[in-house]
Amino acid sequence: MRNVFYPKSVAVIGVSSKPDNLGRNIMLNLIDFGFEGVVYPVGPSGGVITSRRIHESVSDIPDEVDMAVILVPARFVPQVLEECGKKGIRRAVIETAGFREYSEQGRALEGELTAIAEKYGIRFIGPNCIGVINMENGFSVPFPRLKPFMRKGDVSIITQSGGVGLSILNHMAAEGLGLNKFASAGNMLNINAEDLLEYYIEDAGTKIIFVYLESIGDGRRLMKIARRSPKPILALKSNIGTLGKNIAASHTASLSSDDRVVDAAFRQCGITRIHDVTTLSQYMKALRLPPLNDKRLAIISRSGGHAIVAADACETVGFELAEFPESFIREIEKHFRASVIKLTNPLDLGDLFDLDVYYRIVEETLAQSNVDGVVFLHTSLTATEHGPTKDLVRRLEALGRKFNKPIAVYVSANPSEIQSLKQDLDFPIFTQIVEMLRALKLEYEHARKMQETRDAEEPPLFDVDSQPARRLIDSARAESRDLLLNEAMDVLESYGIPTTRGVSAGSADEAVAAAERAGYPVAMKVISENISHKSDVGGVQLNLRNASAVSEAFEDMKERILKAFPDARIDSVMVQRMVVGGKELILGGRQDDQFGPVVLIGLGGIFVEIFEEAVLRVAPVTREEAYGMIDELKGAQILMGARGQKRFDIDAVVDAILRMSQLLVDFPQIRELDVNPLKVFHEGEGCTALDARVIL
Amino acid sequence: MRNVFYPKSVAVIGVSSKPDNLGRNIMLNLIDFGFEGVVYPVGPSGGVITSRRIHESVSDIPDEVDMAVILVPARFVPQVLEECGKKGIRRAVIETAGFREYSEQGRALEGELTAIAEKYGIRFIGPNCIGVINMENGFSVPFPRLKPFMRKGDVSIITQSGGVGLSILNHMAAEGLGLNKFASAGNMLNINAEDLLEYYIEDAGTKIIFVYLESIGDGRRLMKIARRSPKPILALKSNIGTLGKNIAASHTASLSSDDRVVDAAFRQCGITRIHDVTTLSQYMKALRLPPLNDKRLAIISRSGGHAIVAADACETVGFELAEFPESFIREIEKHFRASVIKLTNPLDLGDLFDLDVYYRIVEETLAQSNVDGVVFLHTSLTATEHGPTKDLVRRLEALGRKFNKPIAVYVSANPSEIQSLKQDLDFPIFTQIVEMLRALKLEYEHARKMQETRDAEEPPLFDVDSQPARRLIDSARAESRDLLLNEAMDVLESYGIPTTRGVSAGSADEAVAAAERAGYPVAMKVISENISHKSDVGGVQLNLRNASAVSEAFEDMKERILKAFPDARIDSVMVQRMVVGGKELILGGRQDDQFGPVVLIGLGGIFVEIFEEAVLRVAPVTREEAYGMIDELKGAQILMGARGQKRFDIDAVVDAILRMSQLLVDFPQIRELDVNPLKVFHEGEGCTALDARVIL
Repeated sequence: MRNVFYPKSVAVIGVSSKPDNLGRNIMLNLIDFGFEGVVYPVGPSGGVITSRRIHESVSDIPDEVDMAVILVPARFVPQVLEECGKKGIRRAVIETAGFREYSEQGRALEGELTAIAEKYGIRFIGPNCIGVINMENGFSVPFPRLKPFMRKGDVSIITQSGGVGLSILNHMAAEGLGLNKFASAGNMLNINAEDLLEYYIEDAGTKIIFVYLESIGDGRRLMKIARRSPKPILALKSNIGTLGKNIAASHTASLSSDDRVVDAAFRQCGITRIHDVTTLSQYMKALRLPPLNDKRLAIISRSGGHAIVAADACETVGFELAEFPESFIREIEKHFRASVIKLTNPLDLGDLFDLDVYYRIVEETLAQSNVDGVVFLHTSLTATEHGPTKDLVRRLEALGRKFNKPIAVYVSANPSEIQSLKQDLDFPIFTQIVEMLRALKLEYEHARKMQETRDAEEPPLFDVDSQPARRLIDSARAESRDLLLNEAMDVLESYGIPTTRGVSAGSADEAVAAAERAGYPVAMKVISENISHKSDVGGVQLNLRNASAVSEAFEDMKERILKAFPDARIDSVMVQRMVVGGKELILGGRQDDQFGPVVLIGLGGIFVEIFEEAVLRVAPVTREEAYGMIDELKGAQILMGARGQKRFDIDAVVDAILRMSQLLVDFPQIRELDVNPLKVFHEGEGCTALDARVIL
Repeated sequence: MRNVFYPKSVAVIGVSSKPDNLGRNIMLNLIDFGFEGVVYPVGPSGGVITSRRIHESVSDIPDEVDMAVILVPARFVPQVLEECGKKGIRRAVIETAGFREYSEQGRALEGELTAIAEKYGIRFIGPNCIGVINMENGFSVPFPRLKPFMRKGDVSIITQSGGVGLSILNHMAAEGLGLNKFASAGNMLNINAEDLLEYYIEDAGTKIIFVYLESIGDGRRLMKIARRSPKPILALKSNIGTLGKNIAASHTASLSSDDRVVDAAFRQCGITRIHDVTTLSQYMKALRLPPLNDKRLAIISRSGGHAIVAADACETVGFELAEFPESFIREIEKHFRASVIKLTNPLDLGDLFDLDVYYRIVEETLAQSNVDGVVFLHTSLTATEHGPTKDLVRRLEALGRKFNKPIAVYVSANPSEIQSLKQDLDFPIFTQIVEMLRALKLEYEHARKMQETRDAEEPPLFDVDSQPARRLIDSARAESRDLLLNEAMDVLESYGIPTTRGVSAGSADEAVAAAERAGYPVAMKVISENISHKSDVGGVQLNLRNASAVSEAFEDMKERILKAFPDARIDSVMVQRMVVGGKELILGGRQDDQFGPVVLIGLGGIFVEIFEEAVLRVAPVTREEAYGMIDELKGAQILMGARGQKRFDIDAVVDAILRMSQLLVDFPQIRELDVNPLKVFHEGEGCTALDARVIL
């Protein structure tokens, strides 16, 4: 992969001397960005460009070439790639559009490219991309004409859309953030986003990684790579659009839309998902500061109003204001005239106008052991302060490094002064207080998540006999049907998830007999492969208290179902002992196309039906993740014993989640699985599945 | 008020020729901003500044003066104001700090200023402010030296913090937004934020009003003024900090923090509350476009990636993508080469590179009756496109005006190009897609809210006899106590809020007799002025099913309470018929220091206890607002009959809210009032208060 970004000699194929030729732009970009290697222009019409001869084909180039940048009409690309292969070129960037995104014919062309690349061992980026930039060696080959308007820095970018990628560069430039590497991945026919990510994680010049994705390729590989990354990965994943998506069959499916799975997966592997460029650029700036070890901030401000806004923001985003000890206040008091201002946190610098004193106050504050970071709010009042402000910021940067604590510097000044600060200093300047504190919070959370990911244990593996489940699933698949209720319950049981066993009954008399054995009251549920939403058609009867109730319910159920579904085959009913008490949960799972098995837990009833509150994770989940799922559930306090109530059996629910996770990993054939409800009882009393659906 | 912003002759008092003199900055600012009137420098040391003589006192000025800008040490301000009064000056801006915000002595000085102003009929801004700017006549008197870096425009600002106000100006300048008037209100001793707001609403030059507040003065006057405003009012209200606030006694108080009341009040009077400057500046830009009549947008984009990001954002913020009719697609198809790209909404301009064609496509799209606005996403690819881009934006502006539909223009380009577009065009340029769509949504909601405010009916006035309530409240106040349970229920009844009447009983035998009359099962509740949280000490016993249960519960209750509160005086118990079924709500109210009476409604149980979900409004509320409160309640679908359940009696709840509102308006003596629970039954079956607390 390194060779993609560090070629020594480059053939740019598709160059002509016409002023609107895009290959020409690539040539000029390489020159303007100061590419350190040799460039050979290639184009069928020949001619001259930037005082060098345009070769008619790569085979005409007299020297060895290790990279081809290709921008010729799609139908010629296979032929060009073949020539490159023959010439011994093993890396390429194919910028040409008009492949699978365009037509079936284009898709066929992609097939040709893959075959040629295989034959010669060529690895390439694209097609349908705007190319690559490496600020370390000036290898800059996008086809739009670019001025080198951004500085060299430590952020590297992978983007599925060239246009969006360039916009991000514009934003970074506006914020004074430097770029290391940029790759527009296009159709990702050969080198894909995961490959690039893997490379950036190892790449020495890259400290922060940003990924823009419109689709996920191999979600599990993405997670595996990201989990290993010591570098922060920021991702903007678009294309969440739900229009035209199929209506989901199960609760679980509707609660685990693709986008919710992306959220869960990113969270699990430590990728920070970003939704707008404001957050993105603020967060990139925050990441350039030393990490926050804890939540206690000190706010030091030249303006009282700004101090209030910052204190509000601290509270809103969840930071704390460090308490200043009396001795410390006595110390900084010496810098002030008389006792004009109440010294506290936030600290209003009030009538102090000496920037050197500001520095010393920040230094003394940062030295406090209970201060994890400083937010310094500066207002540049006069043009004469411009130089001293710049010096101050430089010294604050060094100070932060010395203490290894972040100093987030906010400056209010007119736009030209801000622009000059951002351009001259390679240190983040914030101009929005609330947004800055939100970004610091993201940074803080990222550091903690990194820690968690490093400390994570393996998902547990229960000793279960998967054979009974396999037999049931195989035979249902052989009959092209989903599992029946009793089969679904058996599958759960075989994985150690407690169920309230029922007895199948084929007639009213059998049902009464089953009820007598189970003990009244009982519940009765229809078992039929034709009916999925049982309760909607009267297929669930609860709280049957005696024999006549059972037998009436049986006949009534049969009648109502046959009325609704005249062709339904009613195999039998399941008679269960009624379970009283406990809280209803929903436990579910499904196979996601990108990320594979996904587990879901939610509180039952209105929580899941009205609020659509549920938490999901990509399986297999660790024990810690399973506990985290319950913590994250809105309303989970009810389970924890809120308002003096008894605590429910969280351990049993976690166990069920983990066993469900293992079941889904073992059987990718299970498309969707709903346990609804899973009843959980008070601490020590376990949980039990009362109903289950398994869709294959 | 107009005279504050449009003086003809100004005395700047506190000027010297020293380079660090702040009065000198004021002089220079007036000159740089091109003030149209005459300026007289005044300072005790005399001397010369900008080639004019510094008068030693205002009385030395030979001509008439109608405005004094004062920046002399605090202790001299009264004397200076007195001189101004004698000179006939009737308007002043007092920038000096060191008054009530500083010391008790400063507070006394403020008293002197008020007396002098009254004597001479002087109206003034400040003290402790950075002054006023009027871009229409160049009256710019802040003491920091300012370059006229912002353009004249239609946004006017009121700010309680000078520093924050200047920061906002910096942000506006960076976005190319123009300023009309700026007033730093400081301590608001004479002219306050409400006065300034009232003036801006009438001021012809002002189209958009921004207010930065750290405290609310007269909340009800603020609401009254804002309600009348046809101009959008944006407010950033800081100082939400809850540290050090007293712990609230009632549920209602803890659910209606000052900041939640501010939210409710702003919403009711049509002020849009803003929490960060990104949202502020984006929203200010959106407000400069013609209003959106409905939610159907068309996205037209030069880059496919940007189109996807915008479509996602539309979905996330709640817009719709207009459907393009087939005939329209046939029409725009003519602009494209072959059928390269699937023409749909969002519309990817793909391989079209002709900016003139872009214009025509936008025009044709805007002409569609089902398109309420266009989002145009432009990527400036080459330097040669810079001029044409500017022309295109100019033409789009005119097009939007012609159709009276918004065209939100996003441009991706490098920072210097963006800066040049923003400076040269007096039309909003957006550079962040998601943030732009959020701002458009705010604009859309504002337009609807304006409509609602205009159409609002009066709060209803029920014909109730307030005398019984007055007698109960007066006698409780005379005894310095809160209302007892039975009194509280009587107050509710007298205002027509249904209650489940109970019978007081002083002994176990009386309780049994009361229960026999009410019919089993019954509930029993302690009546005691010493106990506020009854259920925490066993003061509520539910579901008592026979005489022995009642009598045991009575003794048990007495014992447990006296154990917890040995000194408690147990007046008696209330025996109520048990109410079964229905949903529990909480209905409450309290007096807010700034906004007066506030009403609150919430769903009972975990909603209010765990989620702290409640909706509040400043009383009196209209019938429409009361229905709106229920709509806004998370989980309200439960009341509306979600999942095939029967609908609950919303009309009865609305009636109770309105009567509660009237009660709170009539009796400001009621500090807090909790009806918890208020049980609501199915449609047509009403609601009833089961318990109530009134704190005076």
